[in-house]
Amino acid sequence: MTHQQIDENNAKAIETLLTAKPILIDVLPAINAIPGMTRHTILTSGAPMNWGNYTGGQRKAIIGGIMHERLANTAEEADALIRSGIVKVLPCQSLGCVGSLAGVTTASMPVLVVRDAESGNQAYCSLFEGKVTARLNYGVYNEQVESNLRYLENVIGPLLSEAIKTAGGIELAPIIKRALHMGDELHSRNTAASILFNQQLFPSLLALERRGMAKIDELADYILSGDYFFLRAAMACAKVTMDRIKGFSGSTLVSSMTLSCRDFSIQVAGLGEQWFRGPLPHLDSFGLFPGYTREDIEIMGGESVITETAGLGGFAQAAAFPLQSYQGGTPQQMIEKNLRMYLITASEHQNFKIPFLQYRGVPFGIDIRKVVETGITPMMNIGLAGRGGGQIGAGSFVAPIEPFKLALEAFANRYK
Amino acid sequence: MTHQQIDENNAKAIETLLTAKPILIDVLPAINAIPGMTRHTILTSGAPMNWGNYTGGQRKAIIGGIMHERLANTAEEADALIRSGIVKVLPCQSLGCVGSLAGVTTASMPVLVVRDAESGNQAYCSLFEGKVTARLNYGVYNEQVESNLRYLENVIGPLLSEAIKTAGGIELAPIIKRALHMGDELHSRNTAASILFNQQLFPSLLALERRGMAKIDELADYILSGDYFFLRAAMACAKVTMDRIKGFSGSTLVSSMTLSCRDFSIQVAGLGEQWFRGPLPHLDSFGLFPGYTREDIEIMGGESVITETAGLGGFAQAAAFPLQSYQGGTPQQMIEKNLRMYLITASEHQNFKIPFLQYRGVPFGIDIRKVVETGITPMMNIGLAGRGGGQIGAGSFVAPIEPFKLALEAFANRYK
Repeated sequence: MTHQQIDENNAKAIETLLTAKPILIDVLPAINAIPGMTRHTILTSGAPMNWGNYTGGQRKAIIGGIMHERLANTAEEADALIRSGIVKVLPCQSLGCVGSLAGVTTASMPVLVVRDAESGNQAYCSLFEGKVTARLNYGVYNEQVESNLRYLENVIGPLLSEAIKTAGGIELAPIIKRALHMGDELHSRNTAASILFNQQLFPSLLALERRGMAKIDELADYILSGDYFFLRAAMACAKVTMDRIKGFSGSTLVSSMTLSCRDFSIQVAGLGEQWFRGPLPHLDSFGLFPGYTREDIEIMGGESVITETAGLGGFAQAAAFPLQSYQGGTPQQMIEKNLRMYLITASEHQNFKIPFLQYRGVPFGIDIRKVVETGITPMMNIGLAGRGGGQIGAGSFVAPIEPFKLALEAFANRYK
Repeated sequence: MTHQQIDENNAKAIETLLTAKPILIDVLPAINAIPGMTRHTILTSGAPMNWGNYTGGQRKAIIGGIMHERLANTAEEADALIRSGIVKVLPCQSLGCVGSLAGVTTASMPVLVVRDAESGNQAYCSLFEGKVTARLNYGVYNEQVESNLRYLENVIGPLLSEAIKTAGGIELAPIIKRALHMGDELHSRNTAASILFNQQLFPSLLALERRGMAKIDELADYILSGDYFFLRAAMACAKVTMDRIKGFSGSTLVSSMTLSCRDFSIQVAGLGEQWFRGPLPHLDSFGLFPGYTREDIEIMGGESVITETAGLGGFAQAAAFPLQSYQGGTPQQMIEKNLRMYLITASEHQNFKIPFLQYRGVPFGIDIRKVVETGITPMMNIGLAGRGGGQIGAGSFVAPIEPFKLALEAFANRYK
């Protein structure tokens, strides 16, 4: 296959991506929402891996998820259930789900259901755990985490479901487009998007209040707590969008990226479900909450990099200068990093634009050929977990080159 | 008085300004809110002027205001009422009010009441007329304008009053601080601020809905229509803040700026109520709605430049790159213009900061000495009215040097 043919395939793939129309249609317990989900399935971030390879916070979160589902009372029991095969640990993305950090998603957890109105495909992501730094997906499982998860399950999930259905669903791309003009890059900053989302639910919230539904204030508070609510919606939106090109023949565009505690992996459109692995990304600039040092940082997985795959996050950081106070770096560095991403992408998004770059579209469609040619790899904005569990800051990461090289070799073999 | 003494006075004036705590406490008909307001008073933008000098859209708006108050049935009758002295045309700022464009404020019009909790001073500004381009303050008075003004008076004003009182008042500086991190400069862009304001009213709106109050949806829609609701709050906030230094002895800081259809005028802290006049500002860059040309532009007054006086608008434009699509110019030009304003100000604001400038405080406290020394005059972002009436775009203006020179001479005479 010639480069020109590949370019043509990629251009068609980009066109396909741009037809996606992701709509948040409901919030449901994972068991009811996700095809293939069972009571004994624990979803987690990253490409498939043997149980023995999960370590640190990601391992703790998986164990915590089993206990949360009351399948086991102790970590030892949970471990035994996995070893015996009674509980299955699967990659989130094997079931169309994406997970934040450890990404642990279990049967009873409410998930956002995002449907691409164009293809009918759906993607899922669990709910933001709230403002507390101790969260299951940052490797902590204790009474506080458990009670917070129950609150999401019993109060927030059902209320959100009602509100979203009353609104007739919430189209996500228009919110993302607008938030990019209001200081968000939709990965490490979702402040404007969360407010815009809340605003759009507003008439439904008033209607529910009129009907006498309780705790509507709490729902509004939750959405705006910590300003990260919308990240999960952005992730599911990016996932259902990028799924449009999964298996797109002859295309060298990256269709997914993911992190486990052990490796960084990518999928490529023309190569279907296969994951190409490499070492963990390295940290470029970062900001830590008071009292922490670089030594405290632990990577425990993360699929929020699906936003970068779709042209957001690190690929749109010149839209989000306020991030400097959260994850370090100067505005000039953010601009330079953002501009570098245009060197490895096939196109520029026609709707998602960056005001500072004179409304240039975000770099869109990572081409593994360009990554390997230039040696430039994707920049990703990620929340930082601490060895002790919990969030301790945020940083800007650089992906490893290995998975892109492996994928390009595989592509060359497949399309000789 | 030595420069050092003046510097010390200015530093104290800045300190005083920073203690202001402006709170939106109510929305009331002007006649009930503004001390000195009467049924036969028409407030308008600019320094005091004889009736014969009001021309074009500003004159039409004043006439329209008289008819809106049902004091006259025709323009001729209205004109006669002014000539006979039965109706008095006064500058908004003579009664602590500020007006947008023509700034016409009449007895029945609802005004935002902003109180500085520190000094107890109050300032007032009429309500945004809504998304329609035909607006009284852009020189149009017809049936549509009249019915819209009645809607504000009968529906929006009373609802807003209830909501604001239910919320116990809305503190304005925290909204401004946050909006500066979300793409607003609080003059020609108030998108984020309007949404943040609505968000903050949210619990009150839910409470009013619970009590069975009708049209809460309409109130929310109005606040977000056109994204300019918050400008009026920002203006009254800036006015009540800057009033803190009116008459501040020995200070060369500008305490107010204003435009009529005929001239641009300033007040200086150490010179009390006296206005120093100059020609109209000249247009630097601009954006026009489709179908208009530069020849269609007409200046019909405007006191929204009180926001620039307080370090916002043109003084914070590097916080608002999305403005380029509204009023022209490139991000680089916006940065350069913004940086120039630091050369004519005494200080940098400690709470209002610009993310792109690494969270440098906005240039704050225009010093007439620096303006005259450097020849650099304030940059101001202003909505553009058309000769036919209505808004036709927005532009970036450069103030004339004359009023600053006149004020500096007066200052030298007064503080020999």
